[in-house]
Amino acid sequence: MWQQIDNKLYREFLFADFPEAFAFMTRVALLAEKHQHHPQWTNVWNKVEIWLYTHDEGRISEKDEQLASEIDQLLTGQSK
Amino acid sequence: MWQQIDNKLYREFLFADFPEAFAFMTRVALLAEKHQHHPQWTNVWNKVEIWLYTHDEGRISEKDEQLASEIDQLLTGQSK
Amino acid sequence: MWQQIDNKLYREFLFADFPEAFAFMTRVALLAEKHQHHPQWTNVWNKVEIWLYTHDEGRISEKDEQLASEIDQLLTGQSK
Amino acid sequence: MWQQIDNKLYREFLFADFPEAFAFMTRVALLAEKHQHHPQWTNVWNKVEIWLYTHDEGRISEKDEQLASEIDQLLTGQSK
Repeated sequence: MWQQIDNKLYREFLFADFPEAFAFMTRVALLAEKHQHHPQWTNVWNKVEIWLYTHDEGRISEKDEQLASEIDQLLTGQSK
Repeated sequence: MWQQIDNKLYREFLFADFPEAFAFMTRVALLAEKHQHHPQWTNVWNKVEIWLYTHDEGRISEKDEQLASEIDQLLTGQSK
Repeated sequence: MWQQIDNKLYREFLFADFPEAFAFMTRVALLAEKHQHHPQWTNVWNKVEIWLYTHDEGRISEKDEQLASEIDQLLTGQSK
Repeated sequence: MWQQIDNKLYREFLFADFPEAFAFMTRVALLAEKHQHHPQWTNVWNKVEIWLYTHDEGRISEKDEQLASEIDQLLTGQSK
């Protein structure tokens, strides 16, 4: 469900509440540091919106595809 | 599965890996600040151990029962 | 340095890098859960932008002033 | 101030309160994922204790020295 918008990969995520949303953000932050590739993102209450793009190249790169894929895996893995 | 050990409520939690364990810890930290009641806890890789007790009273209080119950709810809720 | 923009309190925060920015976000998340009052916020790399407003009232309330003040105190406290 | 205890590097860290301690833990978690090398650690309120060792080798390795050094840098960097 990632969409290409303005040369960025974009996806919206909805959770039950703020703590669930922020725990997800923490996992994305850990992925970002692991890959040294960071998102642009917005949160309000239970909603997280993420935009992925490669700043140096001004476009979507393999790094973004990889990070998008690993973020999606967070949602289908074991529950927490 | 909380046990009473040395006048503390104790439970061990196992996760798939470190990021999943730390996301759980983040949720527990948010609960702790919400209730202004904080755990003693240990983590190594995918294992989190939590001890709950009420320092001021030197024993397990209702606050500990409440926090234990809300921590358990994290594990049975929607996945993340 | 909070400004009123579109009936919201707004402030931009700049840090050394992503980990420093995300540690700040974690502290704001803990404050938000403590007060049960949550921000609208955006992060990209070392920049965090926060908008505070009271959704139910459609305007800035005392809750927002309080949260803004406590967020500012994070920046002037002991270093981490 | 890291000490060698039982073939582990050990250091205790004291903070003003729980949120400050947990923000530090979040930074250590980000370092750990970046390096794919994780601590054994304990927290209660404002105190964090960390033990670093290399499980596969049953001793302190260069990875531990490196992580200890980067953790120390968190404490001397710009404040948050």
